[in-house]
Amino acid sequence: MTLAVGLDLGGTKIAGGLVSPSGSVSATASVPTPADDGPAAIITAAAQLVAAIAGHAREPVAGIGIGAAGVIDPVTGRVIAATSSLRNWAGTALGSDLQAATGLPVACDNDVRVHALGEAWLGAGEGAESMLLIAAGTGIGGAYVTGDGPTIGAHAAAGHFGHIPSPEAAGLPCTCGRTGHLEVIASGPAILQAYERAATAPTAPGAPTDGRFTYPSTTQDVVRLAAEGDATAAEAVAAGAGALGRAVAGLVNSLDPSLVVVTGGMADAGPTWWNPLHAAFDDELMDIVRDCPLRPATLGSNAALIGAAKLVFDERARS
Amino acid sequence: MTLAVGLDLGGTKIAGGLVSPSGSVSATASVPTPADDGPAAIITAAAQLVAAIAGHAREPVAGIGIGAAGVIDPVTGRVIAATSSLRNWAGTALGSDLQAATGLPVACDNDVRVHALGEAWLGAGEGAESMLLIAAGTGIGGAYVTGDGPTIGAHAAAGHFGHIPSPEAAGLPCTCGRTGHLEVIASGPAILQAYERAATAPTAPGAPTDGRFTYPSTTQDVVRLAAEGDATAAEAVAAGAGALGRAVAGLVNSLDPSLVVVTGGMADAGPTWWNPLHAAFDDELMDIVRDCPLRPATLGSNAALIGAAKLVFDERARS
Repeated sequence: MTLAVGLDLGGTKIAGGLVSPSGSVSATASVPTPADDGPAAIITAAAQLVAAIAGHAREPVAGIGIGAAGVIDPVTGRVIAATSSLRNWAGTALGSDLQAATGLPVACDNDVRVHALGEAWLGAGEGAESMLLIAAGTGIGGAYVTGDGPTIGAHAAAGHFGHIPSPEAAGLPCTCGRTGHLEVIASGPAILQAYERAATAPTAPGAPTDGRFTYPSTTQDVVRLAAEGDATAAEAVAAGAGALGRAVAGLVNSLDPSLVVVTGGMADAGPTWWNPLHAAFDDELMDIVRDCPLRPATLGSNAALIGAAKLVFDERARS
Repeated sequence: MTLAVGLDLGGTKIAGGLVSPSGSVSATASVPTPADDGPAAIITAAAQLVAAIAGHAREPVAGIGIGAAGVIDPVTGRVIAATSSLRNWAGTALGSDLQAATGLPVACDNDVRVHALGEAWLGAGEGAESMLLIAAGTGIGGAYVTGDGPTIGAHAAAGHFGHIPSPEAAGLPCTCGRTGHLEVIASGPAILQAYERAATAPTAPGAPTDGRFTYPSTTQDVVRLAAEGDATAAEAVAAGAGALGRAVAGLVNSLDPSLVVVTGGMADAGPTWWNPLHAAFDDELMDIVRDCPLRPATLGSNAALIGAAKLVFDERARS
C-alpha cells in the first residue's frame, strides 16, 4: 500500500493528513498560514507540515496532493490569480516549489475543487456519475465533477458560481467589479450586509431606536437572530438562501448533474437557511430534473485532504 | 474508408446526408416529418430517407447517426420526453426502431447536442478544449462540449439553458411551468411577445393609433422593424439579446469554456441582436475569463449531420 499526504492550504491555516488509497485519514495536523510573509514562507511551512505528517507513515508516501486558495492551474501547478488574503500568492509555482522543498511529487488544484473531489469520491456524491458542489461561505464557489474529475476550464477558473447574474442581487456591486451577481446576496458577508441595509432603514421593524440594540457583527449573529425569530434577520438569510437555490436550480437545468452537494460555512446555518434554499431550488427545477437531490456534504474538513490525496492516486493510476 | 449517414430529425423535416470520416457531406436530402402520424410513420420516413441517401454511397456505410427533437437518451436510444410538435414521440425506441427498419447500427442524441458536436469537431469550435453552444431560436437550448463530447446529464436533460432564472424575465410565465426563466425573454417568440406587450401599452411610442399600422406577426418582422430604426422593436430585440448575453456570461463564469458558439434562428438577426448580446456578455464576464470568444456557428444546417455522423465514428473508434 502507498499513502499520500493531503494538504488544504487556506488563508488562515494549512491542514494536512495521511490518506490511504481507500481514503482513510490519519495523522492530521495543521499550522497557521504565514499569509503576510510571502509565498516562500508558506511553502516552507507547508513542507514542514508534510515532514511532520509523513513521519507517521508506516508505508511509503507516494506524493503530496494540495488544494490551495486562489485560482490554481492543476497542469502547471501555478497560482494564476489570488485575492489579497495571501500576500503575493499569484504567480507562485506551488507545485514545483513544494516538490523542491519536500522531494515528493506534488499534484495541486484549488481548494474548492479538491473539496469537491473528496465529496465525489467518498462523501455525499459517492457513486454518482456527476455532482455539482456548491460552497457557500465567505464567497460562493464550487465545482462541477464528472467521471473525469472536476471541470477545470480554459483559464482554470471553472466553479465561480458566485458570478452568475441573480435577480435578487440586481444593482448590488459585486466583489468582481460587476453588479448583480449571486455572491453579493448569497455569501455570508452578503447576508450580514443585507441585514444591515434592512435594519438601518428608517421603517425597518428591527431598527434600533433606543440605543440599547447591539448590531450583529457577524453572519453567525444574523443566523442566530433569525433562528430566534427576528424577522429582519430571517429575511436576510432567506434572501441569500433563496437566491442561491434559484441560481443552483438554473445550473441543474443546464447541466443535469446526478446531485447537488452543499458545503461551506452557510451549510451549518440550520433550517433558517436550508428551508428557503430547498424551497427556491425546488421551485425552479424543470419537471425532468426535479428529483435531483440537494444534500449537505458529509466529510467535513477531511473532504479537502481526501480529495487532494485523490489527485495523487489518480495521477499514479494514469502513469 | 467507411461512411456514415447523418440525420437531423425535427418537427417539420428530416434532413440527412452522407458524411465521410473527415466530415465532408454529400448526397444531402430531406423529407417532411410526418409529425401528426405517430412514431412509426416517422421511423418509416427516416428509413426511406436513409435508403435514398445510402444509395449514393460508393463506400460501405457503417451506420446512422441521428440528432432528433426531444429529450433523447443516447445510451438507450429512447425518447425520454418531447413537446407536442411530434405526436406521441415520448417513449419511442428511436435507436432500435430505426436500426430494425434499416439494418444499420444507429447512434442517437438530441438535435442540439448533435449540432454542437458538429461545430465542436469541424466548425466554430474546432480545436477548442471545451465549447458552450447556445441555440437561440424557438427556444433557448444548447450543449456544453468537452473532449468527451456533449454533457448528457443524469436525465439526458443537460443543455436546457433557457431555464436559467433571468433578472429580465422576472414574473413572466415560462414554457416549463415556472416563471422568470431566460427562455421567456430571449427566445424568438419571446421577443415577438415583448414587442407586442410594449406596442400595445397605451403610452408606447410604437402603439398603433390610426388603424393603418400592421402588427408584426413574426419575430423576423420585429427584427426587421428594429433594423429599420423602430425603437420599440429594437428594445424588444435588445432585451432578449441582453438577457441571453448575461445568462451565457454567468455560464462562462461557472464553466470557463474555451469559447461560446451561437446558433439558431436568432443568430441570423444581424447587429440589432448581436450588438446587445456582445455588450451584455462582455459586461458580466469576470476579468479572468474576459477573453472568452463569443462567435457565430459556421457549419449551418450541416452541423447536425456532421455531428450525428461523428456519433457513429466515435462509437466505432471505441469498439
